[in-house]
Amino acid sequence: MASAKNAFYAQSGGVTAVINATACAVIETARKNKKHINKVYAGRDGIIGALTENLIDTSAETPAAIAALKNTPGGAFGSCRYKLKSLEENRAEYERLIEVFAAHNIGYFFYNGGNDSADTAYKVSQLSGALGYDLKCIGVPKTVDNDLPITDNCPGFGSVAKYVATSMLEASLDVASMSTTSTKVFVMEVMGRHAGWIAAAGGLAAKKPGDPPQIILFPEVEFNQDAFLAKVEASVAKHGFCSIVVSEGVRNPDGSFLAEGGTVDAFGHKQLGGAAPVVAQIVQDNLKLKHHWAVADYLQRSARHVASKTDLEHAYAVGKAAVQYAVKGKNSVMPAIIRTSNSPYRWRIEPVELSRVANVEKTVPAGFISKDGFGITKKCRDYLTPLIKGEAPPPYKNGLPVYVKLKNKAVRKKLKQKFEV
Amino acid sequence: MASAKNAFYAQSGGVTAVINATACAVIETARKNKKHINKVYAGRDGIIGALTENLIDTSAETPAAIAALKNTPGGAFGSCRYKLKSLEENRAEYERLIEVFAAHNIGYFFYNGGNDSADTAYKVSQLSGALGYDLKCIGVPKTVDNDLPITDNCPGFGSVAKYVATSMLEASLDVASMSTTSTKVFVMEVMGRHAGWIAAAGGLAAKKPGDPPQIILFPEVEFNQDAFLAKVEASVAKHGFCSIVVSEGVRNPDGSFLAEGGTVDAFGHKQLGGAAPVVAQIVQDNLKLKHHWAVADYLQRSARHVASKTDLEHAYAVGKAAVQYAVKGKNSVMPAIIRTSNSPYRWRIEPVELSRVANVEKTVPAGFISKDGFGITKKCRDYLTPLIKGEAPPPYKNGLPVYVKLKNKAVRKKLKQKFEV
Repeated sequence: MASAKNAFYAQSGGVTAVINATACAVIETARKNKKHINKVYAGRDGIIGALTENLIDTSAETPAAIAALKNTPGGAFGSCRYKLKSLEENRAEYERLIEVFAAHNIGYFFYNGGNDSADTAYKVSQLSGALGYDLKCIGVPKTVDNDLPITDNCPGFGSVAKYVATSMLEASLDVASMSTTSTKVFVMEVMGRHAGWIAAAGGLAAKKPGDPPQIILFPEVEFNQDAFLAKVEASVAKHGFCSIVVSEGVRNPDGSFLAEGGTVDAFGHKQLGGAAPVVAQIVQDNLKLKHHWAVADYLQRSARHVASKTDLEHAYAVGKAAVQYAVKGKNSVMPAIIRTSNSPYRWRIEPVELSRVANVEKTVPAGFISKDGFGITKKCRDYLTPLIKGEAPPPYKNGLPVYVKLKNKAVRKKLKQKFEV
Repeated sequence: MASAKNAFYAQSGGVTAVINATACAVIETARKNKKHINKVYAGRDGIIGALTENLIDTSAETPAAIAALKNTPGGAFGSCRYKLKSLEENRAEYERLIEVFAAHNIGYFFYNGGNDSADTAYKVSQLSGALGYDLKCIGVPKTVDNDLPITDNCPGFGSVAKYVATSMLEASLDVASMSTTSTKVFVMEVMGRHAGWIAAAGGLAAKKPGDPPQIILFPEVEFNQDAFLAKVEASVAKHGFCSIVVSEGVRNPDGSFLAEGGTVDAFGHKQLGGAAPVVAQIVQDNLKLKHHWAVADYLQRSARHVASKTDLEHAYAVGKAAVQYAVKGKNSVMPAIIRTSNSPYRWRIEPVELSRVANVEKTVPAGFISKDGFGITKKCRDYLTPLIKGEAPPPYKNGLPVYVKLKNKAVRKKLKQKFEV
């Protein structure tokens, strides 16, 4: 249909185990709406693909390949960490986006990311309006950090939460087995620089008080070394061991990250990263207890093999709703997950204004953290539990998950002007 | 049956995702051989339970609870790192074992562990013979390190191998998505202090040359920093990123562990552990490439949620065979896995003399490591592939695996003499 415009879809920021399920939903739903949407072009490496006119023609992919995106972690078209500056500072970037969109007859802009992406999508919608360019801008939520406002939770988070809770449960069975003669303290570091949602999810491994993890260290709670060491000692005395979840974003009373820790390498450089080894060292120096530590890093946010079915359904639903909103003419909105019941868990998708989402960060509320600052409350548990429910294993072949690799066929460039990012 | 003797079963050393499947097999098979075996007593915290007369009566557990051990990682009765000294050095320990066995009418000794355990079981068999105490001593193989001789592979290894290959595959999809503007080098540390089998398994994530991991660092290969950095640079130039698996046991040319790294904390103490951060730091200092690193630690060997079905079957088979050998009167042997065909993978269990297993360590042979020292050969791939095949997910409830916790009812002590370990 010649009158139907093309759509542009881009993945932004850190990828997740289920962001490709959102991509799948956008493409599948667009394919069902041929009257409105001709082709879906994806940005190669996110928004950079739009700025540099590196577009991917998703119409070259088979329905089976697109469906397989539901099972595949990472970002199928590439993502990027690239925050557009403010309109005032770099109007040229926004104008370039609209120039590329115009050259490729793009009338729909789906931006799949976190806070920054909602902000960018919002600004693009404002500028296109000001320039009289007809563009439907839809922000599509995604972030393992779970820190977007209004939406009940963020696609990507439920799967990390399931991974972290499962890993803590399993590793703690290991530590408990070994604790009489060997490891007594186990520390697992998880992501979440500013918000402790992922750390909180580790708490789901515990079924009753005293179960591991006995300690969670949140970025929302200033690190109190004395209280921490007392709790470690008490746990080892009572249970024979102590399992600890530490967020990468935990801070010292002076505001510095614990992960900086004053550790220097052989050349005197400040050593990079690792809150877990710092916590382990504090235990070692003060309590002389044998410890082990793990840093899950990318493993946690790419662990599609243990993804949450609920999270996968959320990820698909927001992609589908985004396209439905766009073809109905909505602009400058984001599909948000609205929880209507905890048990059984019920939810629906509703559009919210991007202006309300942009640049607002939702951290773990005080009511979700136990009084001593080292655990989660029932309220938190009730919130988190539905998000990790259900399994959605990928297909396996020869012992490994089968993950799809798309053709990612380039769209022929139309603009003479190059754009440097 | 009053004439039937009791059996003693103990778990030794680091636990695995499937060691409880072996325990399950021992108990289930013993229950089918009531004519020969009355009760199975398990050692609380491994062999220490025998020395201190802390025995667990597994007959108090329901068939369903015992069956659920197949799905449960860690050591259900506790394990320990406790190596009995040589007979000459500490004959009292061996005599104490036999004293406890005699007091509880124990005629069968199943010791589930690695090299040290095979050695201990062998020595106990020798001494019981010399003392005229009738005891069937069976070593039952278990070790994620896969370093036992004669047996084709060691139960526990296949599941770690599957975890490591899956994690590397998934995390590398993440890195590949981000590499244009963000992380270009990803380092994952795995276990294996003396043998690089687990590191080698990371290589299964690659389907074709150039696929991640582009670099594997084996303990069998002396770390060559220049060659390593050149390979990192080449990989980033060609693929945009470089994924690295590093064994915790990688050594510098001077023989020191890379994980020692010369890194000191703020107090000038040598920092403990972590080959991955050291490798990341080397990349940072020399190539200034943005990196991320993960340390899987206990997560890898407790990851029952992604266990290999083949490994689980091995683990069960060696436990079952151990009991069958014992009731047939065999002594001082270990059930070994004998591979009879690669494709399709076929295997059987055969008894081997413990004396041939004790204290022999099987490292990765030169023919399994690529010429440049940074990868695996086809021969290695053919060996490893069958071991990770098949999935055997545990049951789930509320989003988390259901793992059994046994009653672990104590057997009443009969000896007056206490024994300090």
